[in-house]
Amino acid sequence: MWNHRHLLGIAELSRDDMLLVLDTAERWFAMPRDEAKNARVLHGRTVINLFFESSTRTRTSFEVAGKRLGADVVNVSAQTSSVTKGETLLDTVRNLEALRADAIVLRHPASGAAEFVSRGTQASIVNAGDGAHEHPTQALLDAFTIRRHKKRLAGLAVAICGDILHSRVARSNALLLGALGAEVRLCGPRTLLPREAEALGPTVRVFDRMDDAVADADVIMMLRIQTERLAGAMIASNREYARTFGLSLRVLALAKPDALVMHPGPINRGVEIDPRIADGERSVILDQVESGVAVRMAVLSSVVAAADAKRAAS
Amino acid sequence: MWNHRHLLGIAELSRDDMLLVLDTAERWFAMPRDEAKNARVLHGRTVINLFFESSTRTRTSFEVAGKRLGADVVNVSAQTSSVTKGETLLDTVRNLEALRADAIVLRHPASGAAEFVSRGTQASIVNAGDGAHEHPTQALLDAFTIRRHKKRLAGLAVAICGDILHSRVARSNALLLGALGAEVRLCGPRTLLPREAEALGPTVRVFDRMDDAVADADVIMMLRIQTERLAGAMIASNREYARTFGLSLRVLALAKPDALVMHPGPINRGVEIDPRIADGERSVILDQVESGVAVRMAVLSSVVAAADAKRAAS
Amino acid sequence: MWNHRHLLGIAELSRDDMLLVLDTAERWFAMPRDEAKNARVLHGRTVINLFFESSTRTRTSFEVAGKRLGADVVNVSAQTSSVTKGETLLDTVRNLEALRADAIVLRHPASGAAEFVSRGTQASIVNAGDGAHEHPTQALLDAFTIRRHKKRLAGLAVAICGDILHSRVARSNALLLGALGAEVRLCGPRTLLPREAEALGPTVRVFDRMDDAVADADVIMMLRIQTERLAGAMIASNREYARTFGLSLRVLALAKPDALVMHPGPINRGVEIDPRIADGERSVILDQVESGVAVRMAVLSSVVAAADAKRAAS
Repeated sequence: MWNHRHLLGIAELSRDDMLLVLDTAERWFAMPRDEAKNARVLHGRTVINLFFESSTRTRTSFEVAGKRLGADVVNVSAQTSSVTKGETLLDTVRNLEALRADAIVLRHPASGAAEFVSRGTQASIVNAGDGAHEHPTQALLDAFTIRRHKKRLAGLAVAICGDILHSRVARSNALLLGALGAEVRLCGPRTLLPREAEALGPTVRVFDRMDDAVADADVIMMLRIQTERLAGAMIASNREYARTFGLSLRVLALAKPDALVMHPGPINRGVEIDPRIADGERSVILDQVESGVAVRMAVLSSVVAAADAKRAAS
Repeated sequence: MWNHRHLLGIAELSRDDMLLVLDTAERWFAMPRDEAKNARVLHGRTVINLFFESSTRTRTSFEVAGKRLGADVVNVSAQTSSVTKGETLLDTVRNLEALRADAIVLRHPASGAAEFVSRGTQASIVNAGDGAHEHPTQALLDAFTIRRHKKRLAGLAVAICGDILHSRVARSNALLLGALGAEVRLCGPRTLLPREAEALGPTVRVFDRMDDAVADADVIMMLRIQTERLAGAMIASNREYARTFGLSLRVLALAKPDALVMHPGPINRGVEIDPRIADGERSVILDQVESGVAVRMAVLSSVVAAADAKRAAS
Repeated sequence: MWNHRHLLGIAELSRDDMLLVLDTAERWFAMPRDEAKNARVLHGRTVINLFFESSTRTRTSFEVAGKRLGADVVNVSAQTSSVTKGETLLDTVRNLEALRADAIVLRHPASGAAEFVSRGTQASIVNAGDGAHEHPTQALLDAFTIRRHKKRLAGLAVAICGDILHSRVARSNALLLGALGAEVRLCGPRTLLPREAEALGPTVRVFDRMDDAVADADVIMMLRIQTERLAGAMIASNREYARTFGLSLRVLALAKPDALVMHPGPINRGVEIDPRIADGERSVILDQVESGVAVRMAVLSSVVAAADAKRAAS
């Protein structure tokens, strides 16, 4: 049984927790939307999206998920928030909690922000990305997507390629896929690889050449490159990055013939991925987006139920 | 029967289609709101407002329309969207579609944007204005407003005055009113008139003097002037524009005694329209706004129903 | 019985009106949220938040209140509104009203804005702060919070401290608390005190030393200081303000032992209030936020019901 009042990161989840979210998401994925709405799982509840970084796709996905569960969803963005008036993060969160918010979906540029605020609030905190730390719902939706296509996670070789060092997506995925038995290969420019990547799990290995990372892979997960980080990686241009660490047809041919291609979006077409691959039959990029709503419905309903149970028990 | 999965422009509608929307809108217009809400026409459905130009009034009108039909409505604006992260328009739309959006209401500065994205998505696309091309729901709400007041459209003389060249409102209205039998008179500075305006329909005529265009008109529709375009029209100032192409009491007296005065808003008081006229008894400007919600309820419900029917049939 | 179609300010309310809102808010405060939602008090209704100043906390509170009552809530902010296109305030409001909005919650920098627009619209106008004039729902939620803790308002000594001159919160509170029998003490730098503060009511007194204002007080309400106003108050820095007009532990000790500490938020920690007090056991700052939703549910439901009754009677 799920008993986490918050979802702060993959690191805090047991293997059973992970599978429970994926299974719950399967039910939401399959359920017709009017039936989901009629189930009124979050009827009368309030979900607040508190975003200190703009991210249309993540905010929209959580907003749709909350509304499909019947919740009242309220968006608060940093641009218009009291934060610009000098209020502390914790004061902002406590004020939203005082509106009797059930869940606060937090996106913040500082690693550890979600965990920090969770210690000072009664509302359920769902981490929607905190700095370079974790982005747990992204990893869960990625795993969900892989499992739907491959029918399993254990034993699969998953290559995650790009700016690993700064990527919360890579980090959460390495933790989750590793725990569920996949072999995780992290690949990127040497300067954008974390020093202790192998500490993420016994099945995690690090590569600095795409050919090696992708060889016989079942899944290739490309990360978004931030152009401003290329300089730090001693890479002069998007074009040079594309040639060395982009996913080309030549590189893709090194993976298994039925390999899946993934990307958390938004895509830089022609930089980290060849457009023919992004739009090709191996690509499950839009499946990831679709899975995201079901996974977030599972997470929101689970954390609120856990909070209710704890309140009832105390 | 309405069988358009999208609403991209007036140009693609048959006369019967046009009348069907107007008649459907009449029902929504007359229906008490709690009854509309109880009808749950879009219960469990998702409507996304994707706006690449800010337009409070159009966005708000669609948002209210979607919510009154029971849909979950999500707003995405270009300022905060992934587009600023270099994502293509089609990728943005496909991502929203992947959330299982039923309808995407698109406002975009490029002519043809709505038609372009409609070819790459399963969601229903509703054009809420694309460049200087079309703004079909505006034309439909204008026709709806005229018909409510005049009980007919055929045989009416409608003068549309202002920057015709850049106006999607003028274009959609000329197509719609022409098809429904009205005589359409387009009037503006010579440099702001399209060269082939008469190609919009057999009943369309072009004028470059307000007095001629308004003479014995049943309806006068003033367009919003964009001050930055006056230079291109060899007009030095708002004041000069008002004198030559604004709607004054003197000009209004040339129209039929019961002529309607319309404006798509927002109004530049004292520039394209005398405030006494905007607030006067001939003005139906606020009726247009009220009609807009009913027309957009009709459009949203119709395109979603058509998409459902196509899906069921395939 | 409540018969105000608008809520423009405390000044227009009778003592019975004030108590009626507080009592109605008590019911919403106690009601489980799913029960409130099922009551469908504003089912099918439309509430528009029209904010010309950004205020996440007030907007969010009204948004949550409206949604908990079952209304469709639409946010319109000045940044994206037609106002930037030169439309007048009254035209903007009339356009929103024409969408058949039931209530428009208006925040505006000009004193008197709410009263001004109320004269030109059929929708219920709720003043969410107009310049330095009034912020009636803030005062009502403050009184609600005090009454819940003290079981009464009459006879209490309430010190309101800070920039009284520019504070709509101080003004509305002085009017409300005075009318309900509290002794109101206004305290701040002499240059930030209004000349005729005593005109706010027979129980209102003015102080320019914190020690005097707080002595034996039952409630201390600290106002937010705007740093840019310190210069006008001949105060050189936040630090100097904190020393002279901030709430320190030393000053707090002068109040009654069970005195409540309040603040409308957002807090400048260490400027107008010592963080140990803000987070201490006397602080009811988060209770104020929680009360706000119940009070705004009471206000929204009451003004809409009054408008319905007037319409039915006419």
